[in-house]
Amino acid sequence: MFHGLSLLPDCAPGTKAPDDYFRDVLLLSRLADQGGMSHVKMTEHYLGAYGGYCPSPLAFLSAVAAATTRIRLMTGCVLPVFHHPVQLASEAAMVDAISGGRLDVGFARAYLPQEFDAFQVPLDGSRERFTATIDAVRRLWTEENVSVDTPFFRFEGVTALPRPVQRPHPPVWIAAVRSRSSFAWIGEQGYNLLVTPALTPLGEMSDHIAVYREAHADAGHAHRPQVVASLPLYVGDSDEEARRTADPLLRSYLDVWAAATDSWLSVASDDYRGYTGMSRAIRALDATSFRTMGSAVVGAPATVVDRVQEITEVLGADGFLWQMDFGAVPGQIAVASLERFLDKVLPSLSSVRS
Amino acid sequence: MFHGLSLLPDCAPGTKAPDDYFRDVLLLSRLADQGGMSHVKMTEHYLGAYGGYCPSPLAFLSAVAAATTRIRLMTGCVLPVFHHPVQLASEAAMVDAISGGRLDVGFARAYLPQEFDAFQVPLDGSRERFTATIDAVRRLWTEENVSVDTPFFRFEGVTALPRPVQRPHPPVWIAAVRSRSSFAWIGEQGYNLLVTPALTPLGEMSDHIAVYREAHADAGHAHRPQVVASLPLYVGDSDEEARRTADPLLRSYLDVWAAATDSWLSVASDDYRGYTGMSRAIRALDATSFRTMGSAVVGAPATVVDRVQEITEVLGADGFLWQMDFGAVPGQIAVASLERFLDKVLPSLSSVRS
Repeated sequence: MFHGLSLLPDCAPGTKAPDDYFRDVLLLSRLADQGGMSHVKMTEHYLGAYGGYCPSPLAFLSAVAAATTRIRLMTGCVLPVFHHPVQLASEAAMVDAISGGRLDVGFARAYLPQEFDAFQVPLDGSRERFTATIDAVRRLWTEENVSVDTPFFRFEGVTALPRPVQRPHPPVWIAAVRSRSSFAWIGEQGYNLLVTPALTPLGEMSDHIAVYREAHADAGHAHRPQVVASLPLYVGDSDEEARRTADPLLRSYLDVWAAATDSWLSVASDDYRGYTGMSRAIRALDATSFRTMGSAVVGAPATVVDRVQEITEVLGADGFLWQMDFGAVPGQIAVASLERFLDKVLPSLSSVRS
Repeated sequence: MFHGLSLLPDCAPGTKAPDDYFRDVLLLSRLADQGGMSHVKMTEHYLGAYGGYCPSPLAFLSAVAAATTRIRLMTGCVLPVFHHPVQLASEAAMVDAISGGRLDVGFARAYLPQEFDAFQVPLDGSRERFTATIDAVRRLWTEENVSVDTPFFRFEGVTALPRPVQRPHPPVWIAAVRSRSSFAWIGEQGYNLLVTPALTPLGEMSDHIAVYREAHADAGHAHRPQVVASLPLYVGDSDEEARRTADPLLRSYLDVWAAATDSWLSVASDDYRGYTGMSRAIRALDATSFRTMGSAVVGAPATVVDRVQEITEVLGADGFLWQMDFGAVPGQIAVASLERFLDKVLPSLSSVRS
């Protein structure tokens, strides 16, 4: 089992200034590096409080690379449908170089209509654009004189620079949420799997992960499939203090997320079946049920150890990336939670086997 | 007068590995920060040895931000024709936040046909795309609910996040090379001016700068127009050692640059008149004439002080950004040159007035 840090800014100018946010998460990243965590992961979003402070996880991770010495850096995720593959492949390889080969690249499909609108990228067809871009990025990392002709981009005889430091290329992770065909495709392709089981019961997510592992095995990939889950975490002094501190932050996070998905109430796309009611589902999820469902882990250190062991057994993941910046949390609260995790939780989890 | 560091990787896998390049220039950036230099500037290019190791100056500067405490960070330049304004405005504001308000944004038009080809951006019309993108970025930094409708991008009611830390927005610099109308436009718009007088005699560049300052004054901008020049610099132990070390590095740099512009031999665009013979002009420039023309400064500390004073008088710039990474230079040679500059040149230049 490995344990990393997962970041997703949910701040707006009225709740936390961007320089404060980045100062805080860079400090968390340094502590995670020194404390033996495996990864720092950062999202890509635009325009709204939900993730909008970080339009470029690669640029953020470049700062983390300079501020740390050993922790791995994960995009979680970049949104390939909003990037040209030559830019994405080159910039990722550059951050791989800046970090001395510490980059993991997570890709996700993107699902917020307002982002597609701003960039004039159609929702319909985005799955094909997603896979075509990832295919092109992988070729640009591993081949020279690459020619590609798709409905979305076309180039001939391109050799991207810099070449990745990690060979054949940085580890690739793909995020999946609910579609069994997505989980199967990720396994077939031999990619690692990144799940965020906020809206999916853990048992159901476990079934999806099994679909992924089976597809991975059937495709005959030599390497072991890696599955990592990202979940909100707050470690308090006591269970009572933890709930008192974390519940309003979780509520705030859910509200920001729900607002970001409200646009689905008036948008429909064949590529995104089932997204219409997403914001209602998120609003319906209160902090208590978020905790008791197992998607958010909140408690004193001993409680967190028990809860993580339970989740590990149900989910069958290889590692966790703990989201610790939710609710535009004041820096000192997040630092205290992380320090409790590093001092009192992580040592007890090191012996846990999935 | 201010003095900063200017970086442009001219490495390929056969001459210097990307992790070595970035380790070296991050060390140079730290030394420049500690030594009282004003800026670290980094270019954006793709695909070839000429700049291709840095497709994202913002991502590189984000690492510099984390590795330094006071030096300013300048893109020099980003190429707006290859970016969506929402991404460019948001990512720049993010690096402004990560750096605590230390970002300067330099924009350039881009001029390498192979980059336009790869991104399927037409050379013809690129001037209009350039100005439209900069206009949109400035509006996204300073306004909310921005609606823009151009032939290149269109969006409605967009409020970009994060908001820039520096108000109203990070200082803007525009690069110009040879067209008088470009210098006049930059002055009219009230932007700062960035010049790289490698192929333009200093006297001619001085005339261009005068055109810029006059247009700036005529437009009635309240702030003082700032002009910065980027030139190659090597400070040696002696003049002889300096030439012996720097000349092959300058030759290598010119060869890499010439190769990048060879595509102009078979391309023509009304938006880029006079570019056809560019690679021949660069190849014709030998290291000796590069030095004696004044575009490259090479010598012992005392020689460099004299040469910088002469150039300052001719050019009338407010500051210099010294390019010290040319020729895929080994790190220890660049560090030694920078240390001589900081110890023996900069103190003597502090009293120089333009």
